[in-house]
Amino acid sequence: MQKDRRGNYFEDFQLGQVIQHGTPRTVTEGDASVYIALTGARQLLHSASTAAKLMGLDRRPLDDVLVFNIAFGKTVPDVSLNAVANLGYAEVRFTESVFAGDTLRCESVVIGLKENSNRKTGLVYVRSTCCNQAGRNVLSWVRWVMVNKADPAAKAGGAHVPSLQVSVRLEDLTSACRLESSDALEEWCELSGANDLWDDYSPGEVIVHPLGMTIEDADHMSATRLYQNNSKPHFDALHMASSPLGKRLVYGGHVISICRALCYDGMENATSILAINGGSHVAPTVAGDTLYARTQVLEKVKLPGRSDVGALRLRTLGLRNHGADKPLDFHAAAQANTQQRTHVVLDLDYVVAIPRASLAR
Amino acid sequence: MQKDRRGNYFEDFQLGQVIQHGTPRTVTEGDASVYIALTGARQLLHSASTAAKLMGLDRRPLDDVLVFNIAFGKTVPDVSLNAVANLGYAEVRFTESVFAGDTLRCESVVIGLKENSNRKTGLVYVRSTCCNQAGRNVLSWVRWVMVNKADPAAKAGGAHVPSLQVSVRLEDLTSACRLESSDALEEWCELSGANDLWDDYSPGEVIVHPLGMTIEDADHMSATRLYQNNSKPHFDALHMASSPLGKRLVYGGHVISICRALCYDGMENATSILAINGGSHVAPTVAGDTLYARTQVLEKVKLPGRSDVGALRLRTLGLRNHGADKPLDFHAAAQANTQQRTHVVLDLDYVVAIPRASLAR
Amino acid sequence: MQKDRRGNYFEDFQLGQVIQHGTPRTVTEGDASVYIALTGARQLLHSASTAAKLMGLDRRPLDDVLVFNIAFGKTVPDVSLNAVANLGYAEVRFTESVFAGDTLRCESVVIGLKENSNRKTGLVYVRSTCCNQAGRNVLSWVRWVMVNKADPAAKAGGAHVPSLQVSVRLEDLTSACRLESSDALEEWCELSGANDLWDDYSPGEVIVHPLGMTIEDADHMSATRLYQNNSKPHFDALHMASSPLGKRLVYGGHVISICRALCYDGMENATSILAINGGSHVAPTVAGDTLYARTQVLEKVKLPGRSDVGALRLRTLGLRNHGADKPLDFHAAAQANTQQRTHVVLDLDYVVAIPRASLAR
Repeated sequence: MQKDRRGNYFEDFQLGQVIQHGTPRTVTEGDASVYIALTGARQLLHSASTAAKLMGLDRRPLDDVLVFNIAFGKTVPDVSLNAVANLGYAEVRFTESVFAGDTLRCESVVIGLKENSNRKTGLVYVRSTCCNQAGRNVLSWVRWVMVNKADPAAKAGGAHVPSLQVSVRLEDLTSACRLESSDALEEWCELSGANDLWDDYSPGEVIVHPLGMTIEDADHMSATRLYQNNSKPHFDALHMASSPLGKRLVYGGHVISICRALCYDGMENATSILAINGGSHVAPTVAGDTLYARTQVLEKVKLPGRSDVGALRLRTLGLRNHGADKPLDFHAAAQANTQQRTHVVLDLDYVVAIPRASLAR
Repeated sequence: MQKDRRGNYFEDFQLGQVIQHGTPRTVTEGDASVYIALTGARQLLHSASTAAKLMGLDRRPLDDVLVFNIAFGKTVPDVSLNAVANLGYAEVRFTESVFAGDTLRCESVVIGLKENSNRKTGLVYVRSTCCNQAGRNVLSWVRWVMVNKADPAAKAGGAHVPSLQVSVRLEDLTSACRLESSDALEEWCELSGANDLWDDYSPGEVIVHPLGMTIEDADHMSATRLYQNNSKPHFDALHMASSPLGKRLVYGGHVISICRALCYDGMENATSILAINGGSHVAPTVAGDTLYARTQVLEKVKLPGRSDVGALRLRTLGLRNHGADKPLDFHAAAQANTQQRTHVVLDLDYVVAIPRASLAR
Repeated sequence: MQKDRRGNYFEDFQLGQVIQHGTPRTVTEGDASVYIALTGARQLLHSASTAAKLMGLDRRPLDDVLVFNIAFGKTVPDVSLNAVANLGYAEVRFTESVFAGDTLRCESVVIGLKENSNRKTGLVYVRSTCCNQAGRNVLSWVRWVMVNKADPAAKAGGAHVPSLQVSVRLEDLTSACRLESSDALEEWCELSGANDLWDDYSPGEVIVHPLGMTIEDADHMSATRLYQNNSKPHFDALHMASSPLGKRLVYGGHVISICRALCYDGMENATSILAINGGSHVAPTVAGDTLYARTQVLEKVKLPGRSDVGALRLRTLGLRNHGADKPLDFHAAAQANTQQRTHVVLDLDYVVAIPRASLAR
């Protein structure tokens, strides 16, 4: 009758195993407000229903990163309670808008397992999907974590490392936002207060986002609790005092939220995130750090059959204690094993939708 | 024309006095979200409308402890602004679900008074009730506080110590949650992600809840402000610097909220709190403390006429800076004047509803 | 293709220039909840829909100061990103109630410009208006800021200092709240728990509000983020470490919110703010400060054609680290260049609506 919720260890996972994650969550306007209070998010589509209507939606959808973090939190009790490290994300696809009142539920499939040679840990790859109350897929992603074994001598599941897409396929990108007319586009730009459209961004261009955000323990814990994420290192200062980090670790998803919010300046017309190709938390973030962000345009992509909205593939670096006024060689900072890399806490390769000038010009 | 809101002193209370508490509160989905952000609550019934529907409710009700704290906050300006200590609760009964949009209003009756022999303070016992906008009672409770006298020489009201129930009577326990079928039960367990039902808990069993939560000043103040509780010791660091504690005192209701949230792991299928038999704040909690919780099953109770849902009487100890990995003799910690007791900040005796296996098996 | 959002410098403003501010905001019950959690606001009209109905409204409107702060935040990216100091407000008029679901949008007109003799900075005066989704004006105000020049040698726009009203004109004051009967008034007072009406306040009377509130960095940042205000000094500890203040500056609007919430005790029957005649942030507030408030009644005003509700012109001083138990000569503290002034962080001259006894007596 032991009700010891220790989570799964590496030897508990099986290739092909399907895990239904507990505790679905009804998301509300309250979550949207708390999210804005904790991140300062200003993305227009999520800020104003008047803006969402211009894009053909009934009302404003919830912020993509908020949805991602809530969905991610659902997978923690089964996937990563015994994780040593959250190594990366891939193939993150936002497939449908989420609105206040929707109830989100998640499941994961184990798509890869590889024990480490020390037999103390192993890599677990899961593909997770998040559905709304109507059973429609709103989000899916792959992540891989290094998970402890409870018993180094235990026999582990069959080794398999999945091959993952470097970039989500163009035909899988869909945007729920539709601009019906040049008037709607003009009005959208009036609401955003900015004129830079898809056409105005160039591959290679770097945007230095001006704002910085200092992280407080109360803030990152509140965000992580909002997501009902129960991973101990974010909450338990006593436990973490004896860890190598020595203090609470900021949940990586909060770092993404903060950087996404910082990226607003210079990207005001972007509507939503369509996909995340890959993300890695290069270094830990702790309370007291001040985060900044810089973004490079990697690619400009036309969406199939769409002339109103295009896509930009972006690489955003989250930087710790290195403000907009400080020089940074983006290329060097984006490469492993360079000195410039030391400032980087987040390296995110993702795709946003943004209106094209075609309707207007 | 003095508008000095000093609150009531011991000599201001009269036995039988009825106090209508000011400032009713419309509760919303926003309050539910802020509550989750501040506590990490995951209780299924309050998390997902899909789960609430399985239990025969239209949509998710607000968390019981959120409702309790808002109601409690309403009584503070009249009852405990001059309290030296909040000594205990008894006969707390949750009688009806509260939903977003409801407006809560409270009144108290003074049911006991006893001046202390030093004539500087006295005990005040009040029975408080909280009604919704339709006038239906949603919650009632007794609490007793030690209150200062403004003037030691003042004549105090007649002495009377009420006799209180050690445990809320079985016939007073009602659960608004109803499971209609074994399919509904099965689906509920799928949503919770856990299989432990009423039948799987045994009197005497102790559950060690794994998570810990470090308290920040910003967090406990935000929670206490959410409840519109205006008790000075929680907010005024300058005032508290010259108190024996030396710093802000965490509102006891926030400690209950945090411990209730920590209790989720191992109690996932519990739907809601039906009653609190008694609660005491054994020691003060301050920012920087890390809270943990352990729960012992005291009793298993069948609800009259109900085979779908039963009740568990639980005793939860809130522990300060004493994690799940540390040994604890629950029996010793639950008894006054033992060394193990030094870790305890909260001692709560309460009753939760939880589905029975009868429908399924 | 530079997407450098540096904001406007003094030489970028032109007299008569109209600025449409970006990023409208749909306000919700979630914002109301977060606001209560961050400020402890208890104003009855904004707390309970039952109370709002007594005043002839369908449901509770959003707190005036919440609306002001969201609207103000919209103007920051265009008006004050390069401000040295936010010097004052005037002619703030709350013209229509704002409800959950409304979408707010702002524009400003430059009504005054004056370069300073050092040619490094200049004063910018703007009149800003905030409209809801129906295009109805809900709020307007004037503020003036000292703004840096990007280039001291740059030619600045024509000098003009607008003449501003010392006090909003009586005929411009309107209250959306209407009491239909003496029964409604009686019920309102039951809900507020207080009996002091318009008739019970006297010019010259000083109210010492008892509660104090210690400011945390997490709190003021969350509030300022809720308003989507992107002014760097509130968020970037690293940047501020090298400023004369040495640390993050609390957003002045949060100080107003806190003081307004503290003013509840002693002013319980006030319904809403009709106007702010003037406000100045006398000294900076930083985390760790404990705020208190005292209010003097300046004037009693009858509203044209209204016998149910009158207006009080109030002067509230926000005090730093100087509690209700400490002596304060209000008159001296309200005057510049006095020693008592050193405690003052906020000096606010404003008008509230409050029921009159006429219906009842």
